[in-house]
Amino acid sequence: MAQGGSVGIVETRNWRFAEPPDELVLRSGVKLGPIDVAYETYGELTPERDNAIYICHALSGDAHVAGLHSPDDARPGWWDVMIGPGKGIDTDRYFVVCANCIGGCKGSTGPSSINPRTGEPYGLDFPMVTVSDMVKVHHALLTEHLGLEKLLCVTGGSMGGMQVLQWAIDYPEMVESAIPIATTSRLDAQGIAFDEVGRQAVYSDPNWRGGSYYGATPPNRGLAVARMVGHITYLSEHSMRDKFGRSLQDRDEVGYDFGPPDFQVESYLRHKGDSFVERFDANSYLYITKAMDYFDPAADHGTLIDAFKGVRSRVFVISYSGDWLFPTHHSKEIVRALQANGVQTTFCEFQSEYGHDAFLLEDEELAEAMAGFLRNTYAAVTRGKPPRPEPQGAPAASP
Amino acid sequence: MAQGGSVGIVETRNWRFAEPPDELVLRSGVKLGPIDVAYETYGELTPERDNAIYICHALSGDAHVAGLHSPDDARPGWWDVMIGPGKGIDTDRYFVVCANCIGGCKGSTGPSSINPRTGEPYGLDFPMVTVSDMVKVHHALLTEHLGLEKLLCVTGGSMGGMQVLQWAIDYPEMVESAIPIATTSRLDAQGIAFDEVGRQAVYSDPNWRGGSYYGATPPNRGLAVARMVGHITYLSEHSMRDKFGRSLQDRDEVGYDFGPPDFQVESYLRHKGDSFVERFDANSYLYITKAMDYFDPAADHGTLIDAFKGVRSRVFVISYSGDWLFPTHHSKEIVRALQANGVQTTFCEFQSEYGHDAFLLEDEELAEAMAGFLRNTYAAVTRGKPPRPEPQGAPAASP
Repeated sequence: MAQGGSVGIVETRNWRFAEPPDELVLRSGVKLGPIDVAYETYGELTPERDNAIYICHALSGDAHVAGLHSPDDARPGWWDVMIGPGKGIDTDRYFVVCANCIGGCKGSTGPSSINPRTGEPYGLDFPMVTVSDMVKVHHALLTEHLGLEKLLCVTGGSMGGMQVLQWAIDYPEMVESAIPIATTSRLDAQGIAFDEVGRQAVYSDPNWRGGSYYGATPPNRGLAVARMVGHITYLSEHSMRDKFGRSLQDRDEVGYDFGPPDFQVESYLRHKGDSFVERFDANSYLYITKAMDYFDPAADHGTLIDAFKGVRSRVFVISYSGDWLFPTHHSKEIVRALQANGVQTTFCEFQSEYGHDAFLLEDEELAEAMAGFLRNTYAAVTRGKPPRPEPQGAPAASP
Repeated sequence: MAQGGSVGIVETRNWRFAEPPDELVLRSGVKLGPIDVAYETYGELTPERDNAIYICHALSGDAHVAGLHSPDDARPGWWDVMIGPGKGIDTDRYFVVCANCIGGCKGSTGPSSINPRTGEPYGLDFPMVTVSDMVKVHHALLTEHLGLEKLLCVTGGSMGGMQVLQWAIDYPEMVESAIPIATTSRLDAQGIAFDEVGRQAVYSDPNWRGGSYYGATPPNRGLAVARMVGHITYLSEHSMRDKFGRSLQDRDEVGYDFGPPDFQVESYLRHKGDSFVERFDANSYLYITKAMDYFDPAADHGTLIDAFKGVRSRVFVISYSGDWLFPTHHSKEIVRALQANGVQTTFCEFQSEYGHDAFLLEDEELAEAMAGFLRNTYAAVTRGKPPRPEPQGAPAASP
């Protein structure tokens, strides 16, 4: 697989819908509207509208999945290693869309948005949202605003993978294929426990003020602690040992004090915590972790097999051997329930010691597997349709 | 193994030493004194003084390892399942001692103790202590105060196991045998990371006030969050699933709010956090986790093999298959380094899905293994000495 290129300079756009009195009715029964949806697209939609791929982001992700926002942008979108011309998800072949989840803080409506009833930010007056609510909003974006009737593929990792499963369950006729990565059909007690600790860290920060901190000092200390806990779960014992071991931070021996960090890993975590609060809203952290905790299609439908009864997609389930947050046996449970329904299911556990976040790393093997699956799916979907010429921009080395 | 009895009503005693100007010089070079040591003893010392067993406690433990403090005491000492007449560590046979670590908050001198120079609690003026400092203090207690020259065995789990290793390294002539349980010769980056997150949670609590909160509101919220994080690491994914799964807490469906806990595991964690702050001092949590982070005999001596060069004890290393905080490969590293020195080493990985805390549970297999090892050690140590009659109180069923 060639390294591939960049989608270049991109911009986040906004679509507003569910204007009162036509608010969206959420899973909880509460109405929400208007709803802004921040999204980005890359590549070109075919005239047949048969090459659209939808990307679902994880807890702290956003709509900006590839490319740069400006020529001097320091970092590209969060999955730029996967998405671009000649990459695993080849924007010379496919039309790629990603949108920010409601409840988040990256342009889609969330707790930091203005509550039209009060003219003030929602705070905790924002209604609880679920993964199915997030998917419902993105479905509206794709069908009502972008005019798509089919998705060649829906993919994403972690909470993105939960959305992938929900898409396949809720919109079986629309989703030709699904690639849930490093995900689970429901958090176990340990996963809920980690989420709850993160929330408790936020609640414990007096600046949180019951969620009404907008315009004042935000609960940065609490959110930073929450992020540190989370970050440990995204890595693995092995990857942390490789990366940091017991190396000291800018010192020859331990300090015997509570001042600067003794160990590199402490410095790294503090940095991760401090930088996260610059880009994320504490209330969104609460809402999105709750949505993850609540996600449980097996409970919604009786069993996971029942949940997948209507699935019509081909599914490629991917897990990582070093992922201890959503270990491989969670993926295997998904595979078994899909297969019990006769769903065409492929499964691959990638060997990686990196941990849960492995899918975000540049990984030729993953890119090739995704590219192959997408090509096969596209071939199956377009079988019988008149052939299209190869895209002009595809590099010769691409598979 | 018979269930065994209780050591009955016991009391914590205190010994003071290192009175100025004879303060103890700590590893950091700082002097500390006077030093109080809280300790308990059970069983009778033989006239030959050859049956003493020293118990090392873990992070949140204390000197009260067995028995009750009063007839209506709600819970016995922290390892009462293991220590008592006819139990794994049989107080009809052995004289058992346990003492609280310095830096702690259970009677031995720590950050909440009065600083003789100021007449106020030390707070962060308390010097940093290491595992070797803790052991040095307990060595002083056993030799200077209790008149012991030999220990038949030193044992303990988790941070207790670190002390066990330090005992075997620092006092090879004194330690006949050692049983380090569920421990490590050094924390990996992941272990340090979890400790650092706990400390950050405490630092983040405005009531912490740089450690000077005595007489005011303590940083309970921060300490509770720290304990919650810790508690997740003491259990396992499997044990949490068995214990809680996704069961809801006193409700039929999720609440779609941030009020009472949705899931039992959240309620359990909150309870664990809240009850911990009733019995533990936040500064002690900081000092003891730092001592754990700093523990690294391999770095002190060049390699772990070098660290164990002088060890003269027989060693029984015990790990648990379900322990992901100090996984079995940490124990195997200890075993290999001991064996490289020709140390008589036994190793056992107990199958348990319970996690790191498994050694604290009632476990007949562990009790029998400990009892057998102690009897063999005692037989080897007393070989050639005149035989003693069997103790009167030993139940017939004991091994």
